Amino acid sequence: MSKKIPYKMYLQEEEMPKYWFNVKAAMKEQHDPFLHPGTGKPCAAEDLEAVFCKELVAQELNTTDELIEIPQGILDFYRMYRPSPLVRAYELEKRLGTPAEIYYKFEGSNTSGSHKLNSAAAQVYYAKQQGLTSLTTETGAGQWGTALSMACAYYGIDLKVFMVKVSSEQKPNRKAVIRTFGADLIPSPSDTTEVGRKILQEFPGTGGSLGCAISEALETSFKTPNCRYVLGSVLDHVLLHQSIIGQEVKAVLDRYEVTPDIIIGCAGGGSNLGGLISPYMADKIRGKNDIQFIAVEPASCPSLTRGRYAYDFGDTGKMTPLMRMYTLGNGFMPSPNHAGGLRYHGMSPVLSKLYHDGYLEARSVEQTAVFDAAVYFARVEGTLPAPESAHAIRVALDEAIKCRETGEKKKIVFGLTGTGYFDMTAYSRYLDGDMHDYIPTDEDLEKGFASLPQVPNA
Amino acid sequence: MSKKIPYKMYLQEEEMPKYWFNVKAAMKEQHDPFLHPGTGKPCAAEDLEAVFCKELVAQELNTTDELIEIPQGILDFYRMYRPSPLVRAYELEKRLGTPAEIYYKFEGSNTSGSHKLNSAAAQVYYAKQQGLTSLTTETGAGQWGTALSMACAYYGIDLKVFMVKVSSEQKPNRKAVIRTFGADLIPSPSDTTEVGRKILQEFPGTGGSLGCAISEALETSFKTPNCRYVLGSVLDHVLLHQSIIGQEVKAVLDRYEVTPDIIIGCAGGGSNLGGLISPYMADKIRGKNDIQFIAVEPASCPSLTRGRYAYDFGDTGKMTPLMRMYTLGNGFMPSPNHAGGLRYHGMSPVLSKLYHDGYLEARSVEQTAVFDAAVYFARVEGTLPAPESAHAIRVALDEAIKCRETGEKKKIVFGLTGTGYFDMTAYSRYLDGDMHDYIPTDEDLEKGFASLPQVPNA
Repeated sequence: MSKKIPYKMYLQEEEMPKYWFNVKAAMKEQHDPFLHPGTGKPCAAEDLEAVFCKELVAQELNTTDELIEIPQGILDFYRMYRPSPLVRAYELEKRLGTPAEIYYKFEGSNTSGSHKLNSAAAQVYYAKQQGLTSLTTETGAGQWGTALSMACAYYGIDLKVFMVKVSSEQKPNRKAVIRTFGADLIPSPSDTTEVGRKILQEFPGTGGSLGCAISEALETSFKTPNCRYVLGSVLDHVLLHQSIIGQEVKAVLDRYEVTPDIIIGCAGGGSNLGGLISPYMADKIRGKNDIQFIAVEPASCPSLTRGRYAYDFGDTGKMTPLMRMYTLGNGFMPSPNHAGGLRYHGMSPVLSKLYHDGYLEARSVEQTAVFDAAVYFARVEGTLPAPESAHAIRVALDEAIKCRETGEKKKIVFGLTGTGYFDMTAYSRYLDGDMHDYIPTDEDLEKGFASLPQVPNA
Repeated sequence: MSKKIPYKMYLQEEEMPKYWFNVKAAMKEQHDPFLHPGTGKPCAAEDLEAVFCKELVAQELNTTDELIEIPQGILDFYRMYRPSPLVRAYELEKRLGTPAEIYYKFEGSNTSGSHKLNSAAAQVYYAKQQGLTSLTTETGAGQWGTALSMACAYYGIDLKVFMVKVSSEQKPNRKAVIRTFGADLIPSPSDTTEVGRKILQEFPGTGGSLGCAISEALETSFKTPNCRYVLGSVLDHVLLHQSIIGQEVKAVLDRYEVTPDIIIGCAGGGSNLGGLISPYMADKIRGKNDIQFIAVEPASCPSLTRGRYAYDFGDTGKMTPLMRMYTLGNGFMPSPNHAGGLRYHGMSPVLSKLYHDGYLEARSVEQTAVFDAAVYFARVEGTLPAPESAHAIRVALDEAIKCRETGEKKKIVFGLTGTGYFDMTAYSRYLDGDMHDYIPTDEDLEKGFASLPQVPNA
């Protein structure tokens, strides 16, 4: 007989996972290796160590160890805001009149407001261990910059955040939070880098782009002694750190003898979804469960559902190694009217491979339907979701409504990655009826695909 | 032998308090009764029921029942965001090098961002039970309006929030959150009420005031069928609902056999502090503990430390019954440069009485010192406090530093009432070095005292 499931399920401190889960150790085939864009040869660890911390490169390339121990210094940080609650959405089930059980893992109750903190903590810890004294990064909407500034304040490392200029102007609150945590926030393009100065000269008055901010952050890290660049999504080591989410979900659901039928997550770069599903996906690969995994992406930036499985740059500045992934092309830009986040042109190579091999489904949703779900959820469950997270809510609602029709008692788990506090401009547009859907035409997509690189010797 | 205390202490759902704690049942003397401003006679229940819900009036006047059962319909709402975490601030202790133990109860992780939700849930529930169909209220900074809009969305009651116009313009995000929860937000003064129209005619272009917003909310509630006015602080029934905070603190600290030596809370209207200390204060009155209770207020609005214990109106519009409390006079206005909240001219009658009778201490702090504490705390503990809450942090740090000097191992508990997400303008001013302290002169205070009413027959 199963135990009564409370509204919120917390792990006690001593039950908290002490290992990240490396799903690659369970995969039958690995994703294709990173390629050096000049030579077309697979990148060696040394190539990557020029950009990233040594330990993170080791994690990036680790395909054999399923469990990777979380150092005590990171556990000490995690316990400040973890475990995050896993919530049984009783009220939502009741109002929907569905026989389905709905669960969500809420990662937005820490001060950074999102799951990004899980990898920020790890990356800054390893940088400190390596004797580095400063880090650089870029941030678009600001979730990653906030998370990283918190971790840097805690571990005592200097941080320069290049924030897309137009974002830093539209989101003064994000900017202020990052500064409160002591980071140096530089609107990009800036006159502090060569690439920034060049862009300012060519396009005076530009609002900047993520590609440019990445380039400025990379240039600064190369020119600063004891400095490295850090990245908040896409890469395998980021997914590894985010597996703390899935590890907690599994630990607490196992306690109540619950195995999900469906696990749903929004997917931009893919780190949250990858982390959420990791331990369950390993079991699926081994034939121990038959869970349906669903990645949800915006219809305006449909890398999985309409992209190509190809080698591409990770950034629009074409400075990163080439990664094989589902991509719309590094030159693809979603409509500026898209308010719901998840604007990345590519997708985590691990998730891309799992999707390609049929272990993972993908669905795209339109933004007005996403905000319908967000507002409905907020009013019923009392938690204001980030628009990104609301992509997962949309599909969870759809699946729960299907269950109402079929009578199935499916157990639906979704990831609620962040709070909507910093996205009220988008909510206001929705409430004012000023939000519309934008779906790229095939022609639009072709323009993006045209930016895919020719891969030498591939 | 005492158990190891984890970083975060949570109650399990079945351990959650099922009773509010009515500290008045333990008080040897009650505060003076509310007076009708026209007659000077004590208000009868019927007088109050014209303004407030029946059950809330019964709670307001209840001086005999120590434990008041929380209805299941409210517990169902509480479990969506409660229990709130009680945190042992190990990292803060370490960095301060203090032998003191520091604990804080964090009420800011729910979507409304503050403790106000505890009373909002109760007040809306009772309104629904009474068959009311709508409520009105005012909000200044927006915490109360947000909390109430969440509760109204959940219980299904219409809500009109009169928000001080200048706040609604300066805090578009607060406004958007309130609208997301379906409330009707009206910048005050408005042309929807007589009093609003009158003020607009007299002072075209005014940014409004809390006094005016209260008057508009009251007028609207009187003119709307099945409608009542609700208030988020000061009153005894609000303190009662906030005792859920103290009940949880005591339940979890008792589990670890910890009795605090000092309990600290910020005090504006006093509801959070009153709720936090209630069960411990009852024990103190009965001689069962010797806890030091400290109310912290801004030096710019020092109702306890420099105010008079006198009958006064609760609002600047002089529409409420007269309450005997520590007050700076309903006409007192803190400097507009004060950024830290807690701007109310008076103080909860219950806390005023406890202070007057020597059970409670008060301390005032200056705002730059408050923001010093806020930023330090955020960087160490990873939680961004509301400026109001940071008043309590300031004194907790001061007390912990004293312990470092004396070697005392005091157990310090403070209330962290809310998140700072919506106060980043104030943080930016602090970071830009653009924040200064303002302490009213004795002359300033005399002007406020001049607004104290003549109490007929008192």
